[in-house]
Amino acid sequence: MAQQIHYGSSGVFTSMILIINSGSSSIKMAVIDMPSESLLAEGMAERLGEPGTSLSWHVAGDTERLSLPGADHHVAMEQMLASLFGRIDKTNILAVGHRVVHGAERFIAPTPLNDAVIAEIEALSHLAPLHNPANVLGIRAAREHLPGIAHVAVFDTAFHHAMPRRASLYAVPYHWYIEYGVRRYGFHGTSHHYVAREAASLLGREFADCRLLTAHLGNGCSAAAIADGVSVDTTMGMTPLEGLVMGTRSGDVDPGLHDFIARASGKSLAEITDVLNRQSGLLGLSGRSNDMRTLLEAAEAGDEMAALAVDIFCYRLAKSLAGLAVALGRVDAIVFTGGIGEHASEIRAKTVQQLTMFGVALDTERNELHGRQSNGFITMSGATLPVLVIATNEEAMIARYVYGVICPEE
Amino acid sequence: MAQQIHYGSSGVFTSMILIINSGSSSIKMAVIDMPSESLLAEGMAERLGEPGTSLSWHVAGDTERLSLPGADHHVAMEQMLASLFGRIDKTNILAVGHRVVHGAERFIAPTPLNDAVIAEIEALSHLAPLHNPANVLGIRAAREHLPGIAHVAVFDTAFHHAMPRRASLYAVPYHWYIEYGVRRYGFHGTSHHYVAREAASLLGREFADCRLLTAHLGNGCSAAAIADGVSVDTTMGMTPLEGLVMGTRSGDVDPGLHDFIARASGKSLAEITDVLNRQSGLLGLSGRSNDMRTLLEAAEAGDEMAALAVDIFCYRLAKSLAGLAVALGRVDAIVFTGGIGEHASEIRAKTVQQLTMFGVALDTERNELHGRQSNGFITMSGATLPVLVIATNEEAMIARYVYGVICPEE
Repeated sequence: MAQQIHYGSSGVFTSMILIINSGSSSIKMAVIDMPSESLLAEGMAERLGEPGTSLSWHVAGDTERLSLPGADHHVAMEQMLASLFGRIDKTNILAVGHRVVHGAERFIAPTPLNDAVIAEIEALSHLAPLHNPANVLGIRAAREHLPGIAHVAVFDTAFHHAMPRRASLYAVPYHWYIEYGVRRYGFHGTSHHYVAREAASLLGREFADCRLLTAHLGNGCSAAAIADGVSVDTTMGMTPLEGLVMGTRSGDVDPGLHDFIARASGKSLAEITDVLNRQSGLLGLSGRSNDMRTLLEAAEAGDEMAALAVDIFCYRLAKSLAGLAVALGRVDAIVFTGGIGEHASEIRAKTVQQLTMFGVALDTERNELHGRQSNGFITMSGATLPVLVIATNEEAMIARYVYGVICPEE
Repeated sequence: MAQQIHYGSSGVFTSMILIINSGSSSIKMAVIDMPSESLLAEGMAERLGEPGTSLSWHVAGDTERLSLPGADHHVAMEQMLASLFGRIDKTNILAVGHRVVHGAERFIAPTPLNDAVIAEIEALSHLAPLHNPANVLGIRAAREHLPGIAHVAVFDTAFHHAMPRRASLYAVPYHWYIEYGVRRYGFHGTSHHYVAREAASLLGREFADCRLLTAHLGNGCSAAAIADGVSVDTTMGMTPLEGLVMGTRSGDVDPGLHDFIARASGKSLAEITDVLNRQSGLLGLSGRSNDMRTLLEAAEAGDEMAALAVDIFCYRLAKSLAGLAVALGRVDAIVFTGGIGEHASEIRAKTVQQLTMFGVALDTERNELHGRQSNGFITMSGATLPVLVIATNEEAMIARYVYGVICPEE
């Protein structure tokens, strides 16, 4: 009975998963064929609620663009699905996977959505005020337009749920944890999980037996220590502001900084937190850009502040990786992913150069080629501590999670 | 001419340095004979400005106690000096060394005090509002009661002044550094410097050639990476709140925590910062005590929260040491000091156990004996990475700094 749903109207056995990532001002979608994990279509609606709202779809080599001035989540969702189902038979969609940023301690695995679950996700909004409400907007709109099909939430925090308390608790009054949920949750879980599994496969080892350090370096950056198939520590914390230097986010600062700046500048706590989120990191240090490519070019051209921002980024990353290694005891591989991790050979080189005490050394040519001709490896064959570049694929991982929920293996 | 001042009235060549550490509610003093570095006397005035103000001196095996209800810094200083000079001839005092917490970028070496320098130290009070004003109170009172003698300021931040910018700058708007002095300064510099020099001596190596990790674990805790005779990175930052878990201080937290707690609890930023300083750390986690001995006993007796607080303390310390090792590339030794570092063998064991990837392993018996019968070493002879326990002696180090200023080597 369940299998019939896998047959699309074309009569060909298909199991497409529609992935929806609904943010505050954009909705991203992807259609993944399972179990092949092929990307069949991807779409995006941008600048929701603004005059310049636009929508685009890439399906089977074709690109479609639409202007939808002022469209909100609901209208954009309706139009995106209409465009998509003009190309792909709706009955081919086996299920919908929704990316949700914060699952707190309540959601530690992919979870089928119903009204009660959605209400619970909404109730976690205090932990992710910028993200969970936008995720819920997308979920509600999608369920309205795609009723009678399974919708499953996949949480960015879930992969980190098994962190031991020595890693998850801050040294603050314990009742803050009990009353307010103050603890380290970690983010980018889907990405860390995906590249860690890929790494195990490339290493020819069981994922559950690997001890890995993964560095997801994009607009947001986090590193994780992975052992026994789960994340045992990570640099992001209760919010995605902690840890590494990021494009516009500060990462770690002195906890006395907020009060100091409030007194020195007259700024409110909300304003200071906003500066730490939006005007800090690479942008704040360089005074120029939050984009690593721009900074690397500027540094090359002699911009000292750009060079300093790059230096600090790599130094802090190297220190964090070394610290996370403590959680593993033994490191089997280091994995770079995300826009910077996959494409910035100089960042990888500058970071790994500072980890020589772990007996690690890159192969310059393999690193320059981003591991593309060496199965992801950017260390020499037989290196004691291999380093890999692996393109992350959060959509494929979400599809895998959702497929696992809908079609569990016996 | 200069030498005459070294002769006391007894006719014996002496060069005593009076060390004064003036805090907000206490004044500590010590008299150190130089260059022998013997401690000749130590005194303390406690609970200044309160009904229970008391004063004590230990000189040559004798103890003297006085009650001075409500005495302020000025009165306490006068009485302490009167008591001292009833025992020690005032003319034996070569110079006075004052501990000052924050020297910012202005004071990077021991500095002879005059009115202009004192005003500059006072002007740095925004960086250390609890400490610098109290330091200046003590300096002013001491100069009034001991005129005609050199007074020298020794700064807790000075030993860290050469940190490279990759270690000293936060990834926040650069103009916060330019306008407000926002950067990592580091503290406990006198202690890190002292034990690092002692370690080099015990290792039989030149201090300038050693690469050391030093952990000062007392009420406040910080670790430092030392290379080429200077601190190149440390865990404390712009304030003494950053970094390791401490007795009542949180150390690192998510920079998004303040705003979250303000919204969740209605607390002001000043109140939150106060909780992070005074009700967090070991005390906040355990709900029981800020004292490591108490927690170790409680953990032994089955108190899970005490055990967790100890676990987190050691895990965070191990992670920080591993991170700091990045600044060194090669680690020649790890040094434990401070009340906890010198006396808590279990803390050292639990920390070093997590650093096995550096090829380090303690000798259980030497560790139990705090290295007292093995020249400070708590690793086996010939260990690749020696670990040492060294009793810190900030008074001796301050005396050394002051003596170096007063009697510079040719």
